[in-house]
Amino acid sequence: MEDSKDINNYMNSLGAAARSAAADLAMVSTEIKNNALLYMSEEIDTRRDEILQCNKVDLEKAKQKAIGDALIDRLELTEARIDGMISGLKIVADLPDPVGEIENLKPTPSGLEISKMRVPLGVVGIIYESRPNVTADAAALCLKSGNACILRGGSEAILSNSVIAECLNQGLKRAGLSENIIQIVNTTDRKAVTALLRMEEFVDVIIPRGGKGLVKLISEEARIPVIKHLDGICHVYIDKEADLEQAINITLNAKTYRYGICGAMETLLIHQEVSTKVLPELSSKLIEAGVELRGCEKTCKIINAKLANSEDWVTEYLAPILSIKLVKDLDSAINHINTFGSAHTDSIVTSNEDNAKYFMKKVDSSSVMHNVPTCWADGFEYGLGAEVGISTDKIHARGPVGLEGLTSQKYLVKGNAQIRGA
Amino acid sequence: MEDSKDINNYMNSLGAAARSAAADLAMVSTEIKNNALLYMSEEIDTRRDEILQCNKVDLEKAKQKAIGDALIDRLELTEARIDGMISGLKIVADLPDPVGEIENLKPTPSGLEISKMRVPLGVVGIIYESRPNVTADAAALCLKSGNACILRGGSEAILSNSVIAECLNQGLKRAGLSENIIQIVNTTDRKAVTALLRMEEFVDVIIPRGGKGLVKLISEEARIPVIKHLDGICHVYIDKEADLEQAINITLNAKTYRYGICGAMETLLIHQEVSTKVLPELSSKLIEAGVELRGCEKTCKIINAKLANSEDWVTEYLAPILSIKLVKDLDSAINHINTFGSAHTDSIVTSNEDNAKYFMKKVDSSSVMHNVPTCWADGFEYGLGAEVGISTDKIHARGPVGLEGLTSQKYLVKGNAQIRGA
Repeated sequence: MEDSKDINNYMNSLGAAARSAAADLAMVSTEIKNNALLYMSEEIDTRRDEILQCNKVDLEKAKQKAIGDALIDRLELTEARIDGMISGLKIVADLPDPVGEIENLKPTPSGLEISKMRVPLGVVGIIYESRPNVTADAAALCLKSGNACILRGGSEAILSNSVIAECLNQGLKRAGLSENIIQIVNTTDRKAVTALLRMEEFVDVIIPRGGKGLVKLISEEARIPVIKHLDGICHVYIDKEADLEQAINITLNAKTYRYGICGAMETLLIHQEVSTKVLPELSSKLIEAGVELRGCEKTCKIINAKLANSEDWVTEYLAPILSIKLVKDLDSAINHINTFGSAHTDSIVTSNEDNAKYFMKKVDSSSVMHNVPTCWADGFEYGLGAEVGISTDKIHARGPVGLEGLTSQKYLVKGNAQIRGA
Repeated sequence: MEDSKDINNYMNSLGAAARSAAADLAMVSTEIKNNALLYMSEEIDTRRDEILQCNKVDLEKAKQKAIGDALIDRLELTEARIDGMISGLKIVADLPDPVGEIENLKPTPSGLEISKMRVPLGVVGIIYESRPNVTADAAALCLKSGNACILRGGSEAILSNSVIAECLNQGLKRAGLSENIIQIVNTTDRKAVTALLRMEEFVDVIIPRGGKGLVKLISEEARIPVIKHLDGICHVYIDKEADLEQAINITLNAKTYRYGICGAMETLLIHQEVSTKVLPELSSKLIEAGVELRGCEKTCKIINAKLANSEDWVTEYLAPILSIKLVKDLDSAINHINTFGSAHTDSIVTSNEDNAKYFMKKVDSSSVMHNVPTCWADGFEYGLGAEVGISTDKIHARGPVGLEGLTSQKYLVKGNAQIRGA
C-alpha cells in the first residue's frame, strides 16, 4: 500500500467504520462494556504464547535496526507485562463508568432546569511508539469511556499489536459489540499518520504519545484537536531550606526508579548555597547507580562531571544520564523550569512551606510536587484507576488522563415552554 | 504593513508581550483584577461619545461595502449596548475568581496528598467578527480568569475596537497592571490571523467566533489548540406526543426571539403524524412575524412554502428564514440533527419523558433541550455569569464557555519523601 490515495482510502474506511461504531457504543450499557473487557482479558490470557512469539519477531527486527536500549525495553513483552495487560483490563472493568453521569447546575432565574451529562468524545485516534501493551491499555480506557478508537502503534511493534488487537476484537465480538470499536492501522507507512491527523469528519481527538519527531509531524499536520503526551523533561529542585537527607533520597529515586518513564527526572537544580553540602554525597550515589552526570560550570567545580551544553537542558534522556545546574534562588529555579522544561512534572524539596506554595503556584507544569520524586507522576498512583497517558497540553486535560479525560460534558436544559424575552 | 515578514514580526512582538504579561498575571490577586474591571467600566462610560462616533465611521464604511443586514446589526453600538458592556464588566468583577480553586482528590495508597488547582490557560487568542462589544466582554473574562489575550476583531470594526481597547488598557494601567494583558491586533490584514494561528510559543489557545470562511482558514492554518465557536444550525423537533400549543409557542420563540443569535432555530423538524395539526396555525404565525418558509416536499403539500434544497439543511440563516422537514419518527429526527446540524443546540417538544431522554442522550450537541426554545442557549441564562462564546467543539469545553472554560487544572502532589518502588 505505497500509494497515498490507497492509504487515504484505507484510513477513511477505518474512520467511517469507527464513526458509525461510536454512535452505537454511546448507547451501550456499562454491563456489556465490562463484559467485553473481561472477555478481552481472557483472550489475551489464552493466546499469551502467540503474543510472546510475535513480540519476539518484532524484537529481533528492532535489534537489527539498532533503535536504542530505551525503545527495545519498551517494545519487549514478558509474562509479567502480559499479566499487566490482563489485570489492566480487569481494573478498567471495575472502574465506575463516567458516561451518563449527571451534574446538576444551580437553578436559573428563568426556571430552566440545567444539568451537565458526561458523554464520550466519539472517536479517539491514538498514535504511539514501541510499547505494545498500550494497545490493550488505551483500547480498554476508550471502550469504557464509550469511545471508538483507531490505534496506530509503532512500526517496530506491528506484529505484537496485531495479535493483541485480535484478542480485543474477539472480546468485543463475544460481548455482542462491533469489532469496529477498536481498529488498528495495519500499515507501517507514515502517510497513514498524516491521513489520520486530517480526518476531521471521522475523528474527534488525537492522542499522540511519543518523542520529538512525532511532535513535529503532528503540529504541522493535525487538523483535529490533539491532546499531546510528549516529552517529560522533569526537574527536581533542591531548595536552600531542604532536608538534605530527604533531598538525596528523592533525587536518587526520581532518577533511578525507571529510566524509561516520562516522569523520570532529567535535570536536577540545586540552590547554590547548599550545593557543597549535598552534591558530593549525592553524586557518588548517582555514579554508583550507574548514572552519567553532566553539570553546569559551577557544578563541575564541586564534583567530577562532564560539562553540560545547551542541548542538555532541553533533552529527555530516558537513560542513566542527569544534567545538574546550580541556581542562585527559587525564582531562578522556577524560571529555568518554565523555560527549558516540558510542562510535565516538576518537584521542589524544601522544609519551607511558603517556598513550596510559591513554587507550586508559579511552575507551569501539569504536576507540581513537594517533597516527592517526579517518578510518582502516574494516573494509577493518582487514583484515576489507569491512564491513557500524561498530557503536557493545557486545554481539556493536563497531567495523567484517565476515563474522565476521554469524555466531555453536554448541557441538558429542561423547561416548561418558557419563552425568552417574554 | 503589507509585507508578511513585517506582520509576523509585529504579531510575534504582541505574542512575546502577552506571554510575559500572562506569567505575572497568574500571580495577581482577585482584588486587583476586579479593580481593573471596574476602572475599565468607568473609562468606557467616560468615553462613550467617542466610542459611538468611531462606531458611526465603521458603520458608514461597512454600509458602503454592503456586508449584509445581520452583520450591520452586529456591528452597531448603541447607548444600550454600551450600557451592556459596562454592566458586563461589573458582572464579571462580581463573579467568583476561579483561579487557585483547589479540589482535593481521594487519599492514595502511597500516602501522597493529591489535589487539583485551577489555573489560567496563559495567553488566549480571540478571533471574532463584527460585534465590537465582544472586545470588552471577552477581555473581561480573560482577565478575570488570569489570562492575557490577543484580540483580533473584524476589519469592519477596527475603529470601534481600538477605542474600546484604549479604555480597557487605561483600566489596567489605573489598577497597576501591564497593558500587555489586553492587546488588539491593529492591522486588518488577514495575514495577521495566519500568524496568530501559528504562534505556538506565545499563544495557548485560539477561540474563533465566526462564520464558515473563518472556520476554513482556522482548520487549515492552526498550529495551536482551538476552541471553536462556529455555526449554530439549531433544530426544534416536534414529537408525535407534543403538546401542540406548547410546540407552537416554543417554535415561534426559537425562531423570532432574535434572528442574529447562534441559538436561533434554523430548521424545524415535525413528526409527520402531527404535521397537519400543527403546521397550518404555526406557519401562519411565522409568516405573520415575517419569516420566509422553505419546506421539504411533504411540507409544501400542507402549507404554502418555497421548496427547500439540499443547501437549506446545512445553512445558518441568521435571518427570518426557516427550513421545515417532516420526519417519520424520533430516530429520523435525531439522525437528521446529527447529520446536518452543527452540534450547537437542539430541542425536542414532547410530553413523553422516555422520548425526551432518548433524544437528549442520542443527539450529539453541546446543548440538548426538552420543551424549551433553542434561543435560551446562553452562558448568562445557564448561570455561568457570562460567556466568551458557545463552543461547538467536544474537547475542553462544550456549549457556553464562561470563566471555568478559560482555565485548566494542574495536579498538586505533596508527600514526605515517599520512595516509589520501595
